Amino acid sequence: MEALKNKILAEGQAVGAEIVRVDSFLNHQIDAEFMYEIGEEFKKRFAGEDINKILTIEASGIAIAVCAAKYFGYPPVVFAKKGAPGTMGTDYYSTDAKSFTRGVASSIVIAKKFLSSTDRILIIDDFLAQGEAAFALCNLAEQAGAAIVGIGAVIEKEFQGGGGRLRKSGYRVESLAVIEKITDGKILFK
Amino acid sequence: MEALKNKILAEGQAVGAEIVRVDSFLNHQIDAEFMYEIGEEFKKRFAGEDINKILTIEASGIAIAVCAAKYFGYPPVVFAKKGAPGTMGTDYYSTDAKSFTRGVASSIVIAKKFLSSTDRILIIDDFLAQGEAAFALCNLAEQAGAAIVGIGAVIEKEFQGGGGRLRKSGYRVESLAVIEKITDGKILFK
Repeated sequence: MEALKNKILAEGQAVGAEIVRVDSFLNHQIDAEFMYEIGEEFKKRFAGEDINKILTIEASGIAIAVCAAKYFGYPPVVFAKKGAPGTMGTDYYSTDAKSFTRGVASSIVIAKKFLSSTDRILIIDDFLAQGEAAFALCNLAEQAGAAIVGIGAVIEKEFQGGGGRLRKSGYRVESLAVIEKITDGKILFK
Repeated sequence: MEALKNKILAEGQAVGAEIVRVDSFLNHQIDAEFMYEIGEEFKKRFAGEDINKILTIEASGIAIAVCAAKYFGYPPVVFAKKGAPGTMGTDYYSTDAKSFTRGVASSIVIAKKFLSSTDRILIIDDFLAQGEAAFALCNLAEQAGAAIVGIGAVIEKEFQGGGGRLRKSGYRVESLAVIEKITDGKILFK
């Protein structure tokens, strides 16, 4: 997606060899208008697919998923939570995932009532790095017997291998911008 | 907002005397189409106001803020983070807020570059209970010298006093559904 690559080059910031900071439009400050362009692009990538639920994980995935929902005919959007809050009850699917940016493993959970074996799920997230979050979301959906139609990432950091592992496991992955490497503060796209 | 009250009565669940669970459309599963109706209603409530930024807090506020942004001409949406992730750098405003539902106090932070003294801010959140999150967001914005135009809550639990305290402090608060009390599992609106 050219507009996305241009935005990453204009506003993104490489930090070391592994981190791309895009907090001006994606995961701290949000350019809502641009999120709709991203949502529409996901619809193009998954055109013709039968999708009845969009799954993501708090927090940065939520804006993208809600904007994408508009182009998929407003299926329910479900976001996995990091840890179960006191108001959540006890009936949920749980798995562990390690956050690349926070460096800690945490339980991620989804209430059982929001996943079912008839679900055909599109997983949406902001970054695809080592794939921990995406694998965890697949795991939760599959515990419910749901089908994973595909995984959509706004930015894939190819060199961290998560996308490769997901594709090797048989998942369809669509990333709107694929970063091959970061060298001397420069972001190089595939 | 009648449609919201009806949805709370149809899908919400009173838990004890203080908690209303609306996880089927607002804070776990999200009814994205309905979020746009909510966003439009906030625009009606704050019609004619000069607003150039929408501020919220992760995670449940994000969907609402992004949908509301559409009706306010797409100002930047900034969401405060609970704790500073490793990718965030060090230059941020910080304050403490206690989560009513999680029962723990945590630092909430916003990078300094996303707040300025020329900002005219609308704060958006899902719940207004004791007002901890709203006061914390006001505090962060005011550290930057920004003006708080108003605070929009989807659901105010009036009996927990946060809305009253905010109004007494001089803030304009617009809540789309105000719950007066919860009695014997019944949700009573004002």
